[in-house]
Order: sequence, then structure tokens, then C-alpha cells
Amino acid sequence: MNDLKEGVCLSAMWFNHEQCCWTSNETTFAERDKCPQWKSWAELILGQAEGPGSYIMNYFMYIYWALSFAFLAVCLVKVFAPYACGSGIPEIKTILSGFIIRGYLGKWTLMIKTITLVLAVASGLSLGKEGPLVHVACCCGNIFSYLFPKYSKNEAKKREVLSAASAAGVSVAFGAPIGGVLFSLEEVSYYFPLKTLWRSFFAALVAAFVLRSINPFGNSRLVLFYVEYHTPWYLFELIPFILLGVFGGLWGAFFIRANISWCRRRKSTRFGKYPVLEVILVAAITAVVAFPNPYTRQNTSELIKELFTDCGPLESSQLCQYRSQMNGSKAFSDNPNRPSGPGVYAAIWQLCLALIFKIIMTIFTFGLKVPSGLFIPSMAIGAIAGRIVGIAMEQLAYYHHDWFLFKEWCEVGADCITPGLYAMVGAAACLGGVTRMTVSLVVIVFELTGGLEYIVPLMAAVMTSKWVGDAFGREGIYEAHIRLNGYPFLDAKEEFTHTTLAREVMRPRRSDPPLAVLTQDDLTVEELQGVINETSYNGFPVIVSKESQRLVGFALRRDITIALENARRKQEGILLNSRVYFTQHAPTLPADSPRPLKLRSILDMSPFTVTDHTPMEIVVDIFRKLGLRQCLVTHNGIMLGIITKKNILEHLEELKQHKEPLSPQIDSM
Amino acid sequence: MNDLKEGVCLSAMWFNHEQCCWTSNETTFAERDKCPQWKSWAELILGQAEGPGSYIMNYFMYIYWALSFAFLAVCLVKVFAPYACGSGIPEIKTILSGFIIRGYLGKWTLMIKTITLVLAVASGLSLGKEGPLVHVACCCGNIFSYLFPKYSKNEAKKREVLSAASAAGVSVAFGAPIGGVLFSLEEVSYYFPLKTLWRSFFAALVAAFVLRSINPFGNSRLVLFYVEYHTPWYLFELIPFILLGVFGGLWGAFFIRANISWCRRRKSTRFGKYPVLEVILVAAITAVVAFPNPYTRQNTSELIKELFTDCGPLESSQLCQYRSQMNGSKAFSDNPNRPSGPGVYAAIWQLCLALIFKIIMTIFTFGLKVPSGLFIPSMAIGAIAGRIVGIAMEQLAYYHHDWFLFKEWCEVGADCITPGLYAMVGAAACLGGVTRMTVSLVVIVFELTGGLEYIVPLMAAVMTSKWVGDAFGREGIYEAHIRLNGYPFLDAKEEFTHTTLAREVMRPRRSDPPLAVLTQDDLTVEELQGVINETSYNGFPVIVSKESQRLVGFALRRDITIALENARRKQEGILLNSRVYFTQHAPTLPADSPRPLKLRSILDMSPFTVTDHTPMEIVVDIFRKLGLRQCLVTHNGIMLGIITKKNILEHLEELKQHKEPLSPQIDSM
Repeated sequence: MNDLKEGVCLSAMWFNHEQCCWTSNETTFAERDKCPQWKSWAELILGQAEGPGSYIMNYFMYIYWALSFAFLAVCLVKVFAPYACGSGIPEIKTILSGFIIRGYLGKWTLMIKTITLVLAVASGLSLGKEGPLVHVACCCGNIFSYLFPKYSKNEAKKREVLSAASAAGVSVAFGAPIGGVLFSLEEVSYYFPLKTLWRSFFAALVAAFVLRSINPFGNSRLVLFYVEYHTPWYLFELIPFILLGVFGGLWGAFFIRANISWCRRRKSTRFGKYPVLEVILVAAITAVVAFPNPYTRQNTSELIKELFTDCGPLESSQLCQYRSQMNGSKAFSDNPNRPSGPGVYAAIWQLCLALIFKIIMTIFTFGLKVPSGLFIPSMAIGAIAGRIVGIAMEQLAYYHHDWFLFKEWCEVGADCITPGLYAMVGAAACLGGVTRMTVSLVVIVFELTGGLEYIVPLMAAVMTSKWVGDAFGREGIYEAHIRLNGYPFLDAKEEFTHTTLAREVMRPRRSDPPLAVLTQDDLTVEELQGVINETSYNGFPVIVSKESQRLVGFALRRDITIALENARRKQEGILLNSRVYFTQHAPTLPADSPRPLKLRSILDMSPFTVTDHTPMEIVVDIFRKLGLRQCLVTHNGIMLGIITKKNILEHLEELKQHKEPLSPQIDSM
Repeated sequence: MNDLKEGVCLSAMWFNHEQCCWTSNETTFAERDKCPQWKSWAELILGQAEGPGSYIMNYFMYIYWALSFAFLAVCLVKVFAPYACGSGIPEIKTILSGFIIRGYLGKWTLMIKTITLVLAVASGLSLGKEGPLVHVACCCGNIFSYLFPKYSKNEAKKREVLSAASAAGVSVAFGAPIGGVLFSLEEVSYYFPLKTLWRSFFAALVAAFVLRSINPFGNSRLVLFYVEYHTPWYLFELIPFILLGVFGGLWGAFFIRANISWCRRRKSTRFGKYPVLEVILVAAITAVVAFPNPYTRQNTSELIKELFTDCGPLESSQLCQYRSQMNGSKAFSDNPNRPSGPGVYAAIWQLCLALIFKIIMTIFTFGLKVPSGLFIPSMAIGAIAGRIVGIAMEQLAYYHHDWFLFKEWCEVGADCITPGLYAMVGAAACLGGVTRMTVSLVVIVFELTGGLEYIVPLMAAVMTSKWVGDAFGREGIYEAHIRLNGYPFLDAKEEFTHTTLAREVMRPRRSDPPLAVLTQDDLTVEELQGVINETSYNGFPVIVSKESQRLVGFALRRDITIALENARRKQEGILLNSRVYFTQHAPTLPADSPRPLKLRSILDMSPFTVTDHTPMEIVVDIFRKLGLRQCLVTHNGIMLGIITKKNILEHLEELKQHKEPLSPQIDSM
């Protein structure tokens, strides 16, 4: 569908340009544009392939199709499944941390996201399909888990299925099974036990295997951007690699700030109320600007592939139009570093323009109400920057081959710099800057390219990128979007370094009204109903009695409401002044009192407690590792207050604004 | 030193056979034995290179050197650093789970292990250097961490350093940085936060980079056993790969049982009292049996390399002596599957013998009092088995190329089966069967060999191997050794599926004397001293008073002892009948009473508590995730008992013996 923007295949509508021309006899790349079955729109409508008229016709049709696809995508999302927009990774992270967003992983989201993802990618917007594929995989995992009661009934088990599903999603998106497992571990999952590691591994294995059997790229390889470089890298090249890492980190930090402030503006102003218009507008600008530049007109994945590929004798790309130093084929097959020809200079200018274009458009695209991934645009930006640096290095080495830096390993006519490798390193660095992944990113990139020899350059660039990015802001793009949307997500990565105590965070605070608690055996149904009606808390601690405030357990509001309703309907003799008790045995009551109501079955007898002196560092740790939603605070066994996840997030926000850690208050209890 | 067993380099003593012959002009492999600088012992002593006399001389010298090295190694270990023996991974796992073994990671262990590791590998024993290198790396990590107070003072931080160190260790051992990080995550570390992931990644990066700079293998590659296969694998080949996985799982289960029962016998009988004798004996048997067979005589790493390598035109190995089908070099360079020549048959017999020999010797070698790793022997066994299966498949495909299975993809004269790939898959399967690793193993193997294309076969074999192995026993070799040695290690992998409650596990049990507790403000120094002297617990819960047994905190025995001694020495007026108080303010005392002793500073005000109704499933989870050593049990805020890690391990053992989960007792409190 992407190629439908440029033309159509007469022999079979659904073939893309490449497949269409496979059937013709001209197989070389140079003859690509001359295959008879493939007609550009101008040829088809105006009947001529050349000239300004046909260029304008092609331009017009390009914009027309881009707008149609974008319009269709955003309408489908808006009407059928509002959750299908975006990359979905921030929401999946939040869901895996224990929050439930109903319908987010449902069948409608799955269907609409699958369809609109195709449309959105085809519309030429600066977005990728990898993030949304993770969301699609999680939808599948969620829907499948309903088939097995063991998983559908247990939220924790279901989350393990989702972890494995996201691994499978990345495995399919990049053909990188191990990278997928690591992505799930490092970026998506909140709690990742070893058992899940094995299961994710298995899921990714099956996903990769099925992908290989279907063989979508027609080359019987799992590897998406397979590259083969002929030269090793040299120690000195680490300097440009690290510079690319710095660029990646800067780009990541800049992108996150710009994108978040744009998304915040969209949320807060009237502009956000017209998502369809916004998508159409962005798609139109993208299409108008993209068409004249061949590097932005083509599919982003193809662009990355071209940038990664080393110039070989068979390569007819504009990037490889070097002035040949020696005539004859030997110069070509040895592929030495040569002075660049006019084609390369033109290509570099076009690449620079493409870089600026991609940077600007990606900022405005990520966050639109269509499915939009960030992997491919980030990688494209990095690959463009890397290729430019690579060509610059190559020319530097050619013209200054007697510099002491080059002298040792870069002789005249020798092939010592591989611009494609720079593109690969740049892509990894930019993706690292945006997402702040490390290990998983390196594994994904080398599974993607088969470049096992280049682990050290990749690692160096990715680590640099992460450090530089972290210097400007600790959050990756997904965490930033989580915070923007206000999801209750407690980041497992950030260290809690303050010295506050549980007492300072718990509710009620000193100025607040006392905590709403239930006593275990001297409340009446009416009083209980009153507490429920007057407050909006999700649960209530149960204590021994008003005098001895020792903690007994915790009862959820929902359970109490259901129990009261059931009692009123089914149990005879329960009146408003019936006694409610949470104890094992009924309290001794006066003879004339109505039948008591036993609620022990809904009492959680093992609520999580900490003492008021527990450092918040430990409390945060417990919340993270055990995935708690609330925790009761006691002092010498006596109920004092409650800490919820929300309280902790507020506390973290407060601390961040104060910047300096609050000094611990002097112990006075 | 390994080659010193066979001969000596006249030009430079410290060169091995290969390096010695580099300087000579004969560079081809076939001429290897004819380089003039290298003299076998027979040539040197008897002056003749051929004949039975020189064979016996070589045989004798081989055994002599093997015994010398083994004797030196075991003596050094026994005299200087008893902790330097074994692979060290079980102990490091235990240390990372929170247990402290003093001196295990000290400088003596480091020095002696480094020296004896070289000796042990050179002695020709069936052991590898990879596991011990992890131990050596952890020693370095531990020693370095003493330089930084932030790490030396905080056990948790130090454990993070050790996790990173073990990643660096594997990174160096195999030249596999990402595999190292995953090994640390999957096999070694107990608790592995993302922060540690990044740090381990960085440590592994630096380790890999330094390794590459030193360039020990002389091929400027990180990859230890670099292989390049010319053919892809076919779907049908998954069947033999899975069979190799089954073999690996069976071997793993068999090895673990046999090795553990032998180690148990060594521990329980008189035999274990003569470690030096045992090492000498095993080394002698190994040397005597190994010498006649070329596959066991050579270094195990070299053997693996040879087995992994595909037969090419330059390969002069016995394994590649096929009868050539067509004359001329084309047949060679195309490397089709050919009928095997007599060399291959001889090689297969020798490989079968080598397989049996390795299996038996490895069982008796792992656990000796010398540094001994398990990776290389396991891989060797798998590689031998895999190569045999690979050659068998190759011959099958050659003679039955018209079978429906082979027909489609295996034409006459075509190269459709790669025996080296089978060796690689077999090695991964066997290592997987022994250690039960999955993801990390696949990553290590493909980093080791550069075989990125073969992830799916590797994954299939490793998963099969794990499943088959787990069917015979859930434990890997390291967990089995941990249990054999009785280390307090709570396995994070095993799921706790029983329905017991905290009440049933806590101490004191119903028949036990009541728990030793301290009251917060009405004990005297004499009474406190009495409690300390009468009991041997490591800590005591502090309660409000004998009447109201509400829990206040927890005080460690060690702290109390120190505080009492300090008070007696330094504080004036502390008598035996002085009151001890843990509260904020001193209790009101009669006017004539001696000065009270304030111990609030040593009181842990935030001990970890669970209620008596908490399911043990949750308690075990908390212990694992938070790395607790003990946890107090309360009921309605009242102190009931204590659960320690030891109690949990005993409980798990009991449950395992009963086999059926204990039914939960009916709630009666």
C-alpha cells in the first residue's frame, strides 16, 4: 500500500513495486524503474512518464493517497477503538505494573489497531510499526488468556502472559527473538521472574520460527536489515562512534522535551479537540515536504536498509556514486575508499534535509491519534546522521591519509572506513537516546543486522547516548508519556534517595480528619453504611476496638458493598441496627438484638503493614517489588494510617519540586 | 603449559606448539608436526621422533607433567586457600542471595585460584576455566569494592558489584559480553535490578574491549570458536536438533545425579579425607586413558573448535577425510556431502570412545579440590555427540538422497547437512542440560560462534534439553551443589504451591517453649544478660510489656552484647539492677534506683512483619524479593513468633518429603 502512493502494478494490484518487477526480466537494480508492469500514476492518467506535468500529477496523487490513508486511519480509530492510537507501550508498562485499563487490550483494539497501523504506515507519516506491534501482540496475549481460567482469573498470571506477548511482539517486529525477550525485560515489564524469562523465550522462539516459515522478506533470513561489512573496525573509530552516541543522547533529550511539551499543549488547549484535522494536517505537510526528496519519499524501512548497506560493486544507489580512482572492475570489487563524486554530494545535501525534516515531523507525529511507533523514525534519524558522519570520515581518511591517526591502518586505496557501520551505530544511538534502553537495544540491533562483530562500537555508542540523555532528564519517552497521562506508575528504575519516613507520607496527615476505620465487632449495619457513604476510599482498615486500635485486617469497599447488598436481599433478619462483626465468633449480644451480620470472609487477614519509622526508601522498594497498591502503617501494633501508591507518587513529585531531600523530622513519638 | 605435556619449543620455552611453529616457514596445517623448533619429549630425550620407544617416552612424559601440574594445583589449594577449589558458582549464588562466607572472595583465594586454575587446566583433567573465571572476577570485584566506602559498607551494593563482576567474568571467559550479562541475570544473581543490568553491561563492555585490545587469540576477533557455515538449516533438521536436546537433557540429569551421589559419598566416607590423593588418582587415570586417543589428548577447547568447524578445502583434520567424489578442486571448494572415507570411520570410533571417557571422567572430576569449571567439558561432550549425529545424518542424506525427507532440499552432490552445526547445537544442549540455562546459553553460544542464523535450532535444542532435564529433577548442577553443601539458599526459581499459613511455619511451635522476647522498659541489665546467655538466637523481638504483647521492634543479639559491654566499660552508674529501656523517654523510676540504660539506638523500629494468617506463598515471595533473613509474625498487632530463612528451608524440605501439600488447618484463633 505504501507504493500505491507512487503507482500501481498492472499485473496484480496488491503487488508492491519490487514484487511487481520481479516477474519482469529486468532484475538489476538499475533497470528497476523501467519494468513494464509498473505504472506511475502519471503514466496511467496522463499517459506520459516524463515532464513537469507528470511530476505534478505524481506529486498530487502521492498527497492524495497519503491523505486518504491518514483520514481513514484516524476515523477508524476515533469511531471504533480510541485506545488503538499511539504506540501503546506506555500503557502496557502501566498495565504490567498492576493498573487495569479496561478494554485497552480487547478485541476491538486489536482489530482496529491492526488495520489502522497498515494505513498509518502507508500514509507516509513519520512513524513506525514496531511499538504498535507490541500492543497488538499484548492484545492477542490478553484475548488468548481468557481461554484458560488459570490465567484469566489471576491478574498476576495474566501479566506474565503479557510480558511474554510483548517479547513475541518485538521478536516478530524486528525478527529479533532474543532482543524481544530483553526488550520485555528491560523496557516493558515491571516484574520479571525467571519463569517469565523462559516463557517469553519460548514465545519469542515460536514467533521467530513462524515468521521464518512465512518468510515475509523473501530471503529466508530472520534478519531484517542484513548487512555484511568487509572490514573490521579500528580503535580510533571509537571517537566518531562516541560522538554519534552524544548526538543520539542529545536528540533523545531534545525529542522527549519537545514532544512532551507539544503533547501537553495538545491536551490543554482547544487544538486537542480536533484530532482528525490534526492528523490530516500533519499528513498533508509530511506528504508535501516528503515527495521532492527521494530519501523522504521512500519507505523509512527501505531508507534505513539503504543507509546501512555498504557500497558494493552492484550497488547503484546515489550514495555510492564515487569517482572511481582506477578504471576497471577491480577497483570496484575491492571497494576502496574513494573520493566522492557529485552524486554523493547531492546525496549528502538531500540527507541533511531529510534529517531536519524527520526530526521535526517525528516530534509532531508521535502522539497523534493514529497507531504510531517510534523505533523506525528514531533509527532513520540516527542512520542518516551516522551515514553523513561516515561519509565525512571516509573523505577525511581519503584526503588526509597521512595523518598520524589514519596512517597506521588506512593506506591509500585501502578500504578502512565503512559508512554503513556508522549508520548502524547512529541508529542504535538515537534509539537509545529516546528509549534509554541499553542491553536490549544492542541485542536488537545486532540481531537486526547480523553484525555480531560490532558489539563494542554499538555498546559504546548506546552507553554514551544513555549517559548524555540522562544528563538532561532521567526519563525515557515512555516514562515521560506515562507521567504526562498521569498513570499510577512507580518507576522501578529511579532510585529513591531521600531520608523521609513512612510517617511523613502516610494519610491522614496531621491536619486531616482521622482515618476512616472499622471496628471488628461493635459496628451496626447502619454505621457501616454511613462510613461507606460518607467516604470514597477503596478500603478500610479493621481494628480491634476504638479503645485498643490494634490492627486486625483490611476490607475492600467493593466487598463490603456487595456483602451488605447480599445480606439485605438474602439473609433474613438483618436490620439497620444489626451488629456487624469481623471476628471468628459472634460477640455476645443482648437477647433482644437482631441477628448479627458476619463479614469475616471479606476481611483480608494479612494486610501489608510497615511501622511508622520505616524509611520511605524501604517502603518504595516494597511497593515496587511486591506490586502493592496500599500498605497500612502501624506503631507498636496500633493502626496509624495508610500509604497508597498515589501517596507515594505525590510524595515523589513533592520531593522533585523541592529538589533537596527533606531532612528527617526529629523523633518525637 | 598444556603443550608442555607433549613437547617443548626450543626457540622459546613459553611458546605453545602453534606459536612455536608460527615463526617457522611452514604455515600450512599439514606441515604442523614438522616444524623444527618444536621437539616432542621423545625427540629431546631419546633423540628419535618415531617408533614405539619414543611413543612410550612421550606417553610417560605426558603422564609425568599431568601429575606434576595436578599435584602442584591441589597442594597450593590445600595449603593456601581451601576456598579456591571447585567452580565457585554455587557459593557465589549463595553469597548473592545474602549469605556471607568470609574469605571466600578474598585476595588469597584470588591469587591461588588464578595460579591453580592454570595448573589444573594444563594437567589435562576434564575441567574448564570458565566457572572459576567467574569466581576470580568476583574476587576482583569484591577487593575493588573495598576501595570505595559506598560499596564496602553496604552489603546490598557490594552484591550488585559482584553481579556485574560475574558478568564481566563470563564476558572474558567466552568473549561474550551480552551472554555474560544474561548469565549473571539468569544463573548467578539473586536479585537483579535494572540498574545492575546497566552496570553489568558496562563492566562486560569494558571487559570485552580490554580482551579485544590484548587480542589473546591472535585473530582480532572476540569470538572464541568462530565458525562460518555455508548452508542454511532446513526445517526437517529440527528433528535431529531436538533429539540432541533430549540427549543433552538426559546427560544433564544423569550427570547431576551421578556427580551429587559421588560428592555425597566423598563427604560421608573416609575417602574425602585424602583430597590430594584423589586428585592425583583422577589425574593419573585421565592422563593414562587420554593419551592414546588424539581427541582426548588435545586441549578440550581445541577439540571443541575442531568439532565445530565445517570441513573445508583447507581442513586437514581426520574428520574431513572424505572420499572425494569428483576429482579436482571444484568438488572441494563446493564442499558437497560426500561418502565418508576410512579416516572418518576411524574418527567416529575415536570420538565415541572420547565421549564415554569424557562422560565418566567429568563426573569424577567436578568436585575435586582443584578449580574446576563445567562449561568446557559439558560442551565437549555435546559437541562430540552432535558431530557424531551430524556425520550420521550426512551419510544418511548421501546414501538415501531420494527419501521423501531429503528429496526436496538435498540433491546429489549438494551440501545440505553441516556436521559442525550439529556439534554446536549438541554443545548447547548438553550445557543446557547440566546448568538449565536457556536464554543466556543461546546468547553465549551464538556470541561464541558468531552463528546468528542458527538461533532457532539452538533455542529448540536448549528448550528441549531443559524440559527433559527438568522431568528428572528440577535442580541444575549449581543448585544441587548448594543443597549438598547445605547453604541457606532460597531458590527463586521454584514456585511455592502449597497452602500452608505463616502460623504453621513460625517458631515457637506449639510444643516449644515460648519465644524469647524483651520488654521495652521493664527489664534490668541482669535480666537482659540472662536472656542473652540462655538463648542462642540472633535477635529478639521487643514488645510493649508482658501484659500487652504489642510489637515495638527488633534488636540484634550482636548489638545488645556490644551495647552492654560498652555500658559496663564507659557509662558510670550502670549496675546489674539498672533498668534497660528501648523507649524514647526513660520510664519513671523510684528515686533510689540506679541510672537506666538507654538502648533505643540499637532497636530496629521497622522490623518486617506479617500476620499469622498470611499464606506461606506470600511469605516465601517476600523473603525472596526483599532478601530477608527473618520476619516477625503478629496477630492483631500482638507478637506471636518469628520465621527465619532456615525455618522456610526446613518447611520446604518437609513439604517435599510429604509430597502432598498439607491441608490448611481450620481457622480457630
